Amino acid sequence: MSAELPSPSAPALSGEAPWTVPASTPRTGAGRPSTALHTDRYELTMLQGALADGTADRHCVFEVFARRLPAGRRYGVVAGTGRALEAIAAFRFGDEELAYLSREQMVDRRTLDFLAGYRFNGSITGYAEGECFFPGSPVLSVEGTFAEAVVLETLVLSVLNYDSAVASAASRMTSAAVDRPCLEMGSRRAHEQAAVAAARAAAVAGFAGTSNLEAGRRYGLPTIGTAAHAYTLLHDDEETAFASQVASHGPGTTLLVDTYDVTRGVERAVAAAGTGLGAVRLDSGDLPTLAHEVRAQLDRLGATSTRIVVSSDLDEHAIAALAAAPVDSYGVGTSVVTGSGAPTCGMVYKLVAREGRDGTLEPVAKASGAKSSQGGRKVAARSLDQDGRAVEEVVVSGLDHAVTAWEPEREDLRGLHVPLVVEGAIDSRWTGAAGVTIAARRHEASREELPRGARRLSAGDPAIPTSGLVLPG
Amino acid sequence: MSAELPSPSAPALSGEAPWTVPASTPRTGAGRPSTALHTDRYELTMLQGALADGTADRHCVFEVFARRLPAGRRYGVVAGTGRALEAIAAFRFGDEELAYLSREQMVDRRTLDFLAGYRFNGSITGYAEGECFFPGSPVLSVEGTFAEAVVLETLVLSVLNYDSAVASAASRMTSAAVDRPCLEMGSRRAHEQAAVAAARAAAVAGFAGTSNLEAGRRYGLPTIGTAAHAYTLLHDDEETAFASQVASHGPGTTLLVDTYDVTRGVERAVAAAGTGLGAVRLDSGDLPTLAHEVRAQLDRLGATSTRIVVSSDLDEHAIAALAAAPVDSYGVGTSVVTGSGAPTCGMVYKLVAREGRDGTLEPVAKASGAKSSQGGRKVAARSLDQDGRAVEEVVVSGLDHAVTAWEPEREDLRGLHVPLVVEGAIDSRWTGAAGVTIAARRHEASREELPRGARRLSAGDPAIPTSGLVLPG
Repeated sequence: MSAELPSPSAPALSGEAPWTVPASTPRTGAGRPSTALHTDRYELTMLQGALADGTADRHCVFEVFARRLPAGRRYGVVAGTGRALEAIAAFRFGDEELAYLSREQMVDRRTLDFLAGYRFNGSITGYAEGECFFPGSPVLSVEGTFAEAVVLETLVLSVLNYDSAVASAASRMTSAAVDRPCLEMGSRRAHEQAAVAAARAAAVAGFAGTSNLEAGRRYGLPTIGTAAHAYTLLHDDEETAFASQVASHGPGTTLLVDTYDVTRGVERAVAAAGTGLGAVRLDSGDLPTLAHEVRAQLDRLGATSTRIVVSSDLDEHAIAALAAAPVDSYGVGTSVVTGSGAPTCGMVYKLVAREGRDGTLEPVAKASGAKSSQGGRKVAARSLDQDGRAVEEVVVSGLDHAVTAWEPEREDLRGLHVPLVVEGAIDSRWTGAAGVTIAARRHEASREELPRGARRLSAGDPAIPTSGLVLPG
Repeated sequence: MSAELPSPSAPALSGEAPWTVPASTPRTGAGRPSTALHTDRYELTMLQGALADGTADRHCVFEVFARRLPAGRRYGVVAGTGRALEAIAAFRFGDEELAYLSREQMVDRRTLDFLAGYRFNGSITGYAEGECFFPGSPVLSVEGTFAEAVVLETLVLSVLNYDSAVASAASRMTSAAVDRPCLEMGSRRAHEQAAVAAARAAAVAGFAGTSNLEAGRRYGLPTIGTAAHAYTLLHDDEETAFASQVASHGPGTTLLVDTYDVTRGVERAVAAAGTGLGAVRLDSGDLPTLAHEVRAQLDRLGATSTRIVVSSDLDEHAIAALAAAPVDSYGVGTSVVTGSGAPTCGMVYKLVAREGRDGTLEPVAKASGAKSSQGGRKVAARSLDQDGRAVEEVVVSGLDHAVTAWEPEREDLRGLHVPLVVEGAIDSRWTGAAGVTIAARRHEASREELPRGARRLSAGDPAIPTSGLVLPG
């Protein structure tokens, strides 16, 4: 087991744990937006029926998992957990939300009353954010009454499916980039709020910075960005534009050199900033060839420490193809915010166990042909060989108690479930900017632990198989 | 020209026009969130340089266009225009935003002062929301000073790229579904805020309803949804679950019949609700075959008016494949919210003209190899044959004045640009719920006008070519 691996349940539960919602979390009441209507109508329809027939109070376990990885992918990356917790904290039905439901006669009076007092008082465990996952991995487990757990389905899935899709793609990019920084610049190719989540998820997967200012503000991420072609075109000529940028931002700035002619652009850039020019950016053309030419030109001009940033429709394959080119960092846009061909994870939120008439918890599962699932409360562990290398994803069933504190007894198993919410109290250490930092460390360690083949970009099977382990009752 | 086509500039500009921001638009000050940091850092870096060297006040024209359609698509659909206008209204730098920029030393004092007073006072014209577009179509034109226009790049593109990607996919689905309603159920497969925009964009492209409650509340869309498999599994058996749902929601409800065995499920559904059962939903399996079997069974049971809703990983191709099956409506999830293989539109925001040193407006364009663009202020028209069928997308240049009121003089041309913002005043008729209704009407008429081949789902060229027309100066 790799020495860098923090214990999967770190940060540990303790009396000092900040079991509160961080100040930055949106909540209603203080004018912050409620997340309660980010919900599919059928959840409230089911709630009404269950409140009427008395099943609403049945203790339930819902599980989030993906049936498969996108075609050819070797692993997935859990991301969005911290955001999901923030969103659950803001899941409150205030006057506006209730007025809408009432006006539209969406649900009956009893259901409205229940929603008015809604607080999630159940417990949630799951994979630590940043952890790798595989087909069938039970990445999140939500326990509580049917009523309190069923209404979170859409919100939890929206967050995890998008953020994990981005992180899963981003991890392949940082892997391909090896030690060169990847910078997230894709905001314009995603919904404006999704863009903020994408910058955050990319950071979980090792991106070094983002162009998105809201992501910088909200999650403390480093932000980057200097100029677009518009800045050069605004000015009477390229010399004037470069001189203006250097005057305003100093010679350490990054000059975009491909508006007119790259060779002339590089020449003018060094003339404007001197050999201490921070970087040049190439945003079009045949990047491997251009990078070699520009590096040689910069060196000839004495700008040997001037870096080269490239940023034209890069994905993990383009990054890998630039490995031998003298490039210093990668600006990645469209492909990272759209999951590089897999814009959602396909995670589902399924009822896997519920209290029966006699009060005992029973496994349940859809039985008909397709889309069947495995019933029963489950946790997971990763089995490791003597070198600490991952061998199998082990889905553990047969538990007869809630799993907030489960740790495997076998030494070759690393437990994957950490407590996220305990009886309604959200562990705020997973949220906010600090949560992103913890998640990025977890991802780095988790990816490092995978078999070498896991980092290949070519299509293949999941890096490790998923197997089942039934605990002796 | 089709009789149903409203004038492209309708609703017409008039003295009574509500040139104000609607009450539902988020704004700062009233505790509503600012959109100002949904911005790439380089826009503020450029702003600082331009304020310092005096070019910030140069009059500029920025243009939004897509270089190409996703591979094989015949047309694209402009969506998000109303949302973009709402977002521009909320583009204000309040104390929190300024404090962040100042704390991080992102820009200098002069720039902070400019941002504190920022209001967009320029003008925007563009394609009416819902209009079809083609490669090179100048779908939006933003005129103002460099300073006020450059900072809107990311926000405008985020909105248009995502919403148009969804609407472009959704239009193929409603086209394939012909007269059967398509229902949007994909919230769980998209970022939670993107999901709301997706429901709205799907409505623009003709979807009849959405499962997303926030979209229902915000845009007045019809919402739909009854029960998931969890509801059946919660109960002791399927009979109890169906009886509970019928008791709570009446026999007109939709029962999900594929949790255990579809044939038994249908039998129990009719037993629970009677032959007046509203609908059954099939969410898995071989849908064309199942639909035929279930229809026959329902008819045998006397439930001849009970409808069949299908909802398992449908996209436009699956919908087309169900054309001959006895299906009454389509629930569409993943594929609509992720743009059915094209999750973003690739629209760009380019400076195409700017005031030179002598005060005249000059066309500008990136000149180096790839990603070059056509300079100059442009509008567009669609040329139509005698039957009102679209023949060409005509990009018109050579205008020597701002384009808020441009109408082609030739009878075979339908002007495509409508005024959206006039000297800072947003036309609120394009925003809110009313804007969605207008956009849906526009889309229906615009799609109807395309050549027949445009609606084929197979890969092909754009339905009409894009040509240029230079007005005599």
